[in-house]
Amino acid sequence: MDYSLLVATYRRSVSADRLPQQRVLYECLRAAILDGTLAVHGRLPATRTLADELGMARNSVLYAYERLADEGWVLATRHGTVVAPAAAPSVQRGPELETPSAVLSRRVRNLRRKRERNAEHQAFVSGVPALDRVPLAQWRGFIERAWRAVSPADLGYGNSAGHPALRQAVADYLRIARGVRCSFEQVFITDGTQTSLDLCARLFADAGEYAWVENPGYNGARAAFQSAGLNLVPVPVDADGCAPPATLWRDKPPKLVYVTPSHQYPLGSVLSLERRLQLIDDATAASAWIIEDDYDSEFRREGPPLPAVQGLARAALRIGYMVVPPALTAPVDDALGELARRGRLVDQVALAEFIESGAYALHLRRMRRLYAQRCDALRDALDRHTRGLLTVSGGAGGMHLSARLDVPVRDVEVAEAALAQRLVVQPISGYDMMPEAAGFNGFVLGYAGVPVEHMDERVAVLARVIEAAARGKAD
Amino acid sequence: MDYSLLVATYRRSVSADRLPQQRVLYECLRAAILDGTLAVHGRLPATRTLADELGMARNSVLYAYERLADEGWVLATRHGTVVAPAAAPSVQRGPELETPSAVLSRRVRNLRRKRERNAEHQAFVSGVPALDRVPLAQWRGFIERAWRAVSPADLGYGNSAGHPALRQAVADYLRIARGVRCSFEQVFITDGTQTSLDLCARLFADAGEYAWVENPGYNGARAAFQSAGLNLVPVPVDADGCAPPATLWRDKPPKLVYVTPSHQYPLGSVLSLERRLQLIDDATAASAWIIEDDYDSEFRREGPPLPAVQGLARAALRIGYMVVPPALTAPVDDALGELARRGRLVDQVALAEFIESGAYALHLRRMRRLYAQRCDALRDALDRHTRGLLTVSGGAGGMHLSARLDVPVRDVEVAEAALAQRLVVQPISGYDMMPEAAGFNGFVLGYAGVPVEHMDERVAVLARVIEAAARGKAD
Repeated sequence: MDYSLLVATYRRSVSADRLPQQRVLYECLRAAILDGTLAVHGRLPATRTLADELGMARNSVLYAYERLADEGWVLATRHGTVVAPAAAPSVQRGPELETPSAVLSRRVRNLRRKRERNAEHQAFVSGVPALDRVPLAQWRGFIERAWRAVSPADLGYGNSAGHPALRQAVADYLRIARGVRCSFEQVFITDGTQTSLDLCARLFADAGEYAWVENPGYNGARAAFQSAGLNLVPVPVDADGCAPPATLWRDKPPKLVYVTPSHQYPLGSVLSLERRLQLIDDATAASAWIIEDDYDSEFRREGPPLPAVQGLARAALRIGYMVVPPALTAPVDDALGELARRGRLVDQVALAEFIESGAYALHLRRMRRLYAQRCDALRDALDRHTRGLLTVSGGAGGMHLSARLDVPVRDVEVAEAALAQRLVVQPISGYDMMPEAAGFNGFVLGYAGVPVEHMDERVAVLARVIEAAARGKAD
Repeated sequence: MDYSLLVATYRRSVSADRLPQQRVLYECLRAAILDGTLAVHGRLPATRTLADELGMARNSVLYAYERLADEGWVLATRHGTVVAPAAAPSVQRGPELETPSAVLSRRVRNLRRKRERNAEHQAFVSGVPALDRVPLAQWRGFIERAWRAVSPADLGYGNSAGHPALRQAVADYLRIARGVRCSFEQVFITDGTQTSLDLCARLFADAGEYAWVENPGYNGARAAFQSAGLNLVPVPVDADGCAPPATLWRDKPPKLVYVTPSHQYPLGSVLSLERRLQLIDDATAASAWIIEDDYDSEFRREGPPLPAVQGLARAALRIGYMVVPPALTAPVDDALGELARRGRLVDQVALAEFIESGAYALHLRRMRRLYAQRCDALRDALDRHTRGLLTVSGGAGGMHLSARLDVPVRDVEVAEAALAQRLVVQPISGYDMMPEAAGFNGFVLGYAGVPVEHMDERVAVLARVIEAAARGKAD
C-alpha cells in the first residue's frame, strides 16, 4: 500500500501538536482507519520500515501498533498487522444532525431566549447584586480559614442535605431576620434558587401534572417546571399579587403553586394577607404544594428587602437553601441522597462562619442602605425624565423597579435600541407566560449595580431611546 | 379580655429568646392571633396598659402594634386596635400531611435507598477517591490566588457554559489524556456528573420517552432519568459490556442510551470495539442519543483509570463537565442559560490554573500509581481469604472491584452484617434496575480509600462475615 499520505499527515501533526511522536503516530493511524484510508484487512507497514521512513525509534512505532491492537483497531496476524473488520468505516458513524432547532427535547425548545453576555455591570441589569460592594477581602479570609481547617472528611460528599453548621446558621437567620420558624432539619442546602426549584418540581410533582406560575412571572421557575415535564398554568397577577380565579382550582387543579408573595417578580406587587390565607386554604383543599420563593416581608418597612440568598451568596457562591415542612424532612433527605450529590462542604463551612460571625448581617444592613439610595435615585430620575413615557409599578423591595410603557411602542424594540446605548432593560413581555396574548409592555429596571451619581444620566438616555422609538413608530 | 396568658407567654419567650423585647411581643401577639387566643374583632390592650404590665417602654409596644397593622394582622379602629377579619384561624392553615411515604412524587418515591452516613473513609466504600491524598495545601494556594485575582465581574453569573479558561483546559486535557477531540465550545462546565445527567435527560428527551440504562447500572443515571419523567429500559450487561437484544431497538426505541463503555458500572466490563461501533450504528438508525459516561480507555493499559472529574474534582469542588457534538453547542448554550444559573467562576479559574500548571496531571499520575497498588493489594487479599466465597469480575480500571457471591446468601444480608464490623460493602443487587428479578448477588468493593497495609485485615474480616452469614443460612 501507498502510505505517503500517512507519512505526510504524521509530519504535519507532529510539528503542530507537540505531543510525543508515538502518540501522534497512534492518532494518525487511528484516523486513517476511521476514515477508510487504511481499509479493513489492509496491512500496516512493517514497524522497522515505518520507523525508518518517519525517522523515529522502532519502539515508538511498536507502542502505537500495540495500543491500536489493544483497543481493537488492528489485529496481529501471520501476515503482519492488519486492520480489524470491526473497524470498518462502512457506514457513517454518528447521526447526521438535524438542524439545531430540532435537536433539543420539546420541553426545553421554547426556553431559549436571547441573553446579553458580559452585561452584568451595566444599567439596568436586574437580578444581579452590587458586585463591587461584595466584601471580597473579608470573604477571602473566611474561605482561607475554612480551607486551612479542612479535614479529608470535609472533601467527601458529606450529608446531601448540607453541612449542619450552615443549616443551623440559615435556620437562625430565617428566624431572626424573616420570621420563618424552622428547625435546622427543615433546611436543605442547594446550589442556588434554580436547583431548589428543579428539585421541588421533581420531588413533589409528576410529569403531566399542573404547576401554577404567576403571569408575568419568573422565567427560572418556568424553566424548572417545564423541563420537569409539568404542565404550566399561568395565573394572573394584580396590585395585590397573584389572583387565581376560583374556577381555575376546579379546571386545572395544581400540584404545585409557585408564588413570590413578598415582592412579585417582575411586577413588584405584594400578596395581601387576605390572599395569602385564601391561597393556603385553597391549596389545602386541592392537596397542592405552595412553593414560596423569597420570603422577605421583614424588610418591607425598612427599605428595599435583600433576599438572603440573592445577595452575596447567589452568583459568587452558588449556595442556596430550601425549607420544607417538618413531616417532609426524612423523605426529602432520602430522595436527595439519590438526586443530588453534594460536596463543597468547605464553602459551606466558610458561609456558616460568615453568617455566625455577624459579618453577613452587617453586609445586609449596608446593602439595604445602598439599595435604598439607589432605588430612590432611580425613582427620582424616572420622575424627572420619563413622565408620560413610563409608569412605575410595585417597588416595595428587591433590587429592581418595574415600569409600564405608556407610549405605543413594543418593549422589545426599545430594549433592542437601548443596547446600542449600553443600556440593558429587560422587557416585561419576556416574563409573559402566554406570549401570544401580548398583554405586558414595559421594563424591569435593576438599580442594584448602578451608582447614584450615574443614575440621572442613564435614565435620561433611556428616556431619549423610548422617545426615539415612539417617534419611529409614529412616522 | 384576659391577657394574662399573653403576658406569661411573653415573659417566658423574652428570657428564652434573647431577641429585642418589641420583637418578642410582636411574635407573641401574632401567635395569639394565629391560634385564635386573640379572636377576630377582639381588641388588643391599650399600648400604655400593656407597656406597664410588661415593664417595657410604650414605644416598643407601639412598634409591635404598628408592625402587626402594617402586615394586616390588626386594624386600627375608633375603638382601638382590633384583630382583622382576614386573620381568622377558622380553618386549620396548611394541609394535614399524609404519611411521609406518600408525599413525594411517584417518580422519586422509589429512588430512596438507605445510605450510610459518615462512612466515606471506611473500607470498602466505592465512588470516593483517596481523600487523604488530595494535595490540599497546593490546592489552597490555587484557591487563594484565584480569590486574590478576582474582579467584580467574576462574581456574577458569567457565561452559563462555564469560564472560558476552564473550558479550554478541559478540552486540552481530554485531547491529550483521553483521545477525545473537541473544541472548547463543546465543553460545558456543570456542577458534577449528576448535574450533567440531569441536564442531558431534560435537554434531549421528553417525559414518557425511553431511556436505556445498563443492568446492573449506575443509580445516579437512573435517578436522573426517572426524575425527568423518562421510561427506564434495563439493558443486559455481559463480559463485553452492555448487550441490547436486537428486538429491543424495535420494541422500546430509545431516545437516550446511557453507557459506561470504558469500565461498566458496577460490573467493570469493557465495551468491546465491535459493540461500540454497532451501538453507534443502531443508535444512528434509531435517532437516539448516546450518553457516554466516563470515557477512560486511555488509562486502561497503564493501570486503573482515574476519571478526570471523579478524582480530585468531584466531591470537594463539585465541578464537572459534559462534551456535546459541535452542532449542539449553540442550542445547548441557549437552553442552559435558562436551566442553569452558573457562577462560582473563582473556583473554575482556580481549577483551570491547577490543570494548566501541570499539577493536576501530576496528581493523576500519583493517584494512578497509588490506586494500582491498592487494587493489587485488594486482589491479593481476596485471593488469600475469599476463595470459594467470592469471584472477582471486571477490574480493568476505576476505583473498585466487583465480586460475585458464590455462597447461598443474599448480598444485602452480608452488607448489613459487615456494617457491624465497620465494613461498607455495596450490594450489587442495589444496582439492579429490575430488583424483582433478583438476578445479581455480590459486592462493589472500593479500594481507593483503603491503605495497602490495612487491606489484608479488612478482607479477612469480610471473609469471616460472609462465612458466618452463609453458616447462619445453612443452620
